[in-house]
Amino acid sequence: MKDCVFCKIVRDEMPSSKVFENERLLAFLDINPVSKGHTLVIPKNHYAGFLEIPADLFTEMGQVLQRVGRAAKTHLGSDGFNVLLNNGRAAGQLIDHAHFHLVPRRVGDGVMAWPKVRPYAAGEMETVRSKLANGLA
Amino acid sequence: MKDCVFCKIVRDEMPSSKVFENERLLAFLDINPVSKGHTLVIPKNHYAGFLEIPADLFTEMGQVLQRVGRAAKTHLGSDGFNVLLNNGRAAGQLIDHAHFHLVPRRVGDGVMAWPKVRPYAAGEMETVRSKLANGLA
Repeated sequence: MKDCVFCKIVRDEMPSSKVFENERLLAFLDINPVSKGHTLVIPKNHYAGFLEIPADLFTEMGQVLQRVGRAAKTHLGSDGFNVLLNNGRAAGQLIDHAHFHLVPRRVGDGVMAWPKVRPYAAGEMETVRSKLANGLA
Repeated sequence: MKDCVFCKIVRDEMPSSKVFENERLLAFLDINPVSKGHTLVIPKNHYAGFLEIPADLFTEMGQVLQRVGRAAKTHLGSDGFNVLLNNGRAAGQLIDHAHFHLVPRRVGDGVMAWPKVRPYAAGEMETVRSKLANGLA
């Protein structure tokens, strides 16, 4: 898309710190890192969000995310990593071009706090389960 | 694996709130939800972490995550969602059976705060990029 920041990066119309590139995918450092080596993995084609990613691309995205995760361990000394995708403004998606974050982690780095648990009220879990299961049937 | 909680759920030796199941994957509600409809999508086979997931499983995992994300919107009224995988203790992984979290989100729910940005020092971004790119070459 003409005005999409990530499409501009794909077309080399904007600079980026690329770490990997192949025919269909691009991986580059996030300019607002939450940890050292925080990387974005994106499809070169413009898909607005997670739901638009074609199924056949997931294999390759998974493999590239695995390779970045391994390289973070072997070449940056990380102890683990988070893979994260935000879909929609409500979920914190800022750029409408689907992208996975890979966030290298170290023991005790305090980078990402797990959200507070919000327990279900009595009976509510089954109601939610049933609605969601119906939506998946 | 004999003593893995998720393997026990797969074998129906432990109860769970299943929302979807097929030959290779299972989706069920997290018992410690951070939002209503917080779902785990797991391979039925035991893979300790993200790096052990066979590439050919990613297509199906992606598709099931898309279906759960769509159902959260149509059947639970969510406005968006996060897809999250924690790999390794340092990243918050508690059960050593690879699992994706799908966290339905609503505008302003305050569920997941984006981590604090930790900017690179001068020159550091290129050093990190170069190391990571070497690890991916």
